[in-house]
Amino acid sequence: MTKHKTWRLGVAGLGTVGTGLLTFLADHAKYAPAGGQAVVTGVSARSRSRPRPFDISGLPWVDDPVALATSAEIDIFVELIGGSDGPAKAAVEAALGAGKPVVTANKALIAEHGAELAVLAEAKGVPLLFEAAVMGGVPAVKIVREALVGDDIRSIAGILNGTCNFILTEMEATGRSFGEVLGEAQRLGYAEADPTMDVGGFDAAHKISILAALAFGCAPNFAAAEIEGIENVDLLDIQLARDLGYRIKLVASADRSSDGVLVRVHPSLAPLAHPLAQAGGALNALFIDGARTGRIFIQGPGAGAGPTAAAVAADIADVMTTGTRPVFQVPASQLEPFKPVDPAKSIGRAYLRLSVKDEPGVIAAVSETLAEAGVSIESFLQKPIENAPAILKGGVPIVLTTHAVAESVLKAAIERIAALPAVLDRPRLLRIARI
Amino acid sequence: MTKHKTWRLGVAGLGTVGTGLLTFLADHAKYAPAGGQAVVTGVSARSRSRPRPFDISGLPWVDDPVALATSAEIDIFVELIGGSDGPAKAAVEAALGAGKPVVTANKALIAEHGAELAVLAEAKGVPLLFEAAVMGGVPAVKIVREALVGDDIRSIAGILNGTCNFILTEMEATGRSFGEVLGEAQRLGYAEADPTMDVGGFDAAHKISILAALAFGCAPNFAAAEIEGIENVDLLDIQLARDLGYRIKLVASADRSSDGVLVRVHPSLAPLAHPLAQAGGALNALFIDGARTGRIFIQGPGAGAGPTAAAVAADIADVMTTGTRPVFQVPASQLEPFKPVDPAKSIGRAYLRLSVKDEPGVIAAVSETLAEAGVSIESFLQKPIENAPAILKGGVPIVLTTHAVAESVLKAAIERIAALPAVLDRPRLLRIARI
Repeated sequence: MTKHKTWRLGVAGLGTVGTGLLTFLADHAKYAPAGGQAVVTGVSARSRSRPRPFDISGLPWVDDPVALATSAEIDIFVELIGGSDGPAKAAVEAALGAGKPVVTANKALIAEHGAELAVLAEAKGVPLLFEAAVMGGVPAVKIVREALVGDDIRSIAGILNGTCNFILTEMEATGRSFGEVLGEAQRLGYAEADPTMDVGGFDAAHKISILAALAFGCAPNFAAAEIEGIENVDLLDIQLARDLGYRIKLVASADRSSDGVLVRVHPSLAPLAHPLAQAGGALNALFIDGARTGRIFIQGPGAGAGPTAAAVAADIADVMTTGTRPVFQVPASQLEPFKPVDPAKSIGRAYLRLSVKDEPGVIAAVSETLAEAGVSIESFLQKPIENAPAILKGGVPIVLTTHAVAESVLKAAIERIAALPAVLDRPRLLRIARI
Repeated sequence: MTKHKTWRLGVAGLGTVGTGLLTFLADHAKYAPAGGQAVVTGVSARSRSRPRPFDISGLPWVDDPVALATSAEIDIFVELIGGSDGPAKAAVEAALGAGKPVVTANKALIAEHGAELAVLAEAKGVPLLFEAAVMGGVPAVKIVREALVGDDIRSIAGILNGTCNFILTEMEATGRSFGEVLGEAQRLGYAEADPTMDVGGFDAAHKISILAALAFGCAPNFAAAEIEGIENVDLLDIQLARDLGYRIKLVASADRSSDGVLVRVHPSLAPLAHPLAQAGGALNALFIDGARTGRIFIQGPGAGAGPTAAAVAADIADVMTTGTRPVFQVPASQLEPFKPVDPAKSIGRAYLRLSVKDEPGVIAAVSETLAEAGVSIESFLQKPIENAPAILKGGVPIVLTTHAVAESVLKAAIERIAALPAVLDRPRLLRIARI
């Protein structure tokens, strides 16, 4: 790569992050952190005329992001379009193919097509950087890719979606339902009109898939992630978990063992005093466990125009250094195939909530059934509920936590409990985070 | 800089970190994170024969670290000797002068001579990296230098010395004095035989001086740091602070305002629920406040052979990328002179502990004196103490916290209080951390 005195940027996608970046660069007319200066020489977006917080009329406009990506007028292509396929992928491929460094905030693109894009980038000897794709302004990507490259990372776990964290925090604080809080979050602009990517856990799964590839040296494999969102987290479970000393968080985790890699996103219980439980609102938080370094914890704002644009600007500075390193932990040709661990074999503690008939012998029946199935109970709570919610179907709630148990054993036990005559509905299963 | 297929390392200093690095490299015979492979082609230390956890007999030995630093047999010089001057400085200058990249864990050297070394490194176009100098395995340097280069950092505050944090944690947990716990820490190897650098606050001051230079784009200026260690932290204050809802931590901070930069290390009170208060034992923890990114929090093990060697290894990987960027935030020639803020002008909340005669009217006299001096009281605690310690000189303790007040006003008020007839000893002043 050639070192330039002036680096000409082509910016495709002018939503929150794109206009945030243009604002940042306008505020820092001499942004030259690595000695070279950044200047925007082309922009592209779906609509040229849409109202934006930044006036783009003075910037060279290109209708087609692919044409911008390969333009002789740019030295770095900044992709802020979003989406795993379509114009974002076409433009990034075109830019890399033309030997242009790419900076992107696109988690879906990297999580779903990162391995093939890494091959392309490394063949051309140009960087493909995506700090803004994970945890917004918190440099999780750089920490895992560069700072911990001298360590053997064993596990990563954290809160990677601010929208879900905001919703769960608000549900607990205000006693409102998921639907009510989601509606408020949409009105405030914290949640999209179609909230599926966030509340369904897919956004967090994209991010943890990227971190797993960086940490473990395997190809990112979004398809292998086990994903459960927060749509079915009931206020009742938030309250009962709290009675047991826990808070429900959407926890994304990646664990490596000799069996392979397990990537999961689940609503999970974290002990109230734990830093993950204490990261409220739209915060993101992450634990990284390394064989040498031990546990590192990082926390900060995971989204927003300011933090995300700052992350994009930091990547642009990294391009300016002209240093090259593998896109993921090791050169793309050496990335191990992603070897998924069968989730049924994973071992962990669980929370179960049952709705049962209020009659003698029920607790004995449940505990005997669990014991016969090989599940050991850690704590047990039966508590009268005023204004019992409809979710209990007229029964009373029993909640219990288990000691560590294989998922397959737990699932079999749940089937047996669900079949008990006094149990009125399928037991609700939530995991206790391994943190 | 030339990209090598094999990077030959000269390692000077074979203490905990040096042998930790050799162990790491032996465990990773093909350590090649950026495509080039690392191999040790020379070692140097004060004693060749001293017993070490790693057998160095197979490694080429050089008596003089300066000779190793300039040897034609090495491509990267790794300085793990320590000390702000003497052989460490001579060897680093020699290596940079010979156009060799330098990786060091030497906080004193960078804090006291960083600006001149940066000039030398940048003139030669070679990297000078020191991730291991601050927070051990937690990548504070990389985060501030690279990841937040797109932000305007306003303040940094945290716990940067694990030895002090261990001692303060143990004092609170066991009710033992500073001297007793220090003795134990020395026996366990957590504290040096001469503990002055750690317990006197100088080590933390070196580290925060480096972070200030990286964050604010000014030359590091250790001499300007205001430093108070933990030698005079009394168990009584730990207990009384706790009664008020605080925990005493050695907090290092750097703040930038239009007046200049204020770098301080003080035993300070942090609210019990605050993440800094909850970082116990040998942990390090840091808040970074940026205008765009907001608050980032990082925490992890700040010392030890494993984490520190991993940080050195990460720096070696960074050299291998052959990317060059300024040693601090901006090129050495553009570093602003460090403009210190007069500490007397700094504004903050304070904790005062008085020893007073147990007689009527004392509280009135103290509160009137403070009011006349312009200091506003936030909370006030008078509490009988069983087995009153000698430090109270036969009096009873009064503790109070103030609202935010200028340091000069506070100091003047303390003089007036000390002169009251009922006050038996100089008031003990501790700061409440601005976090």
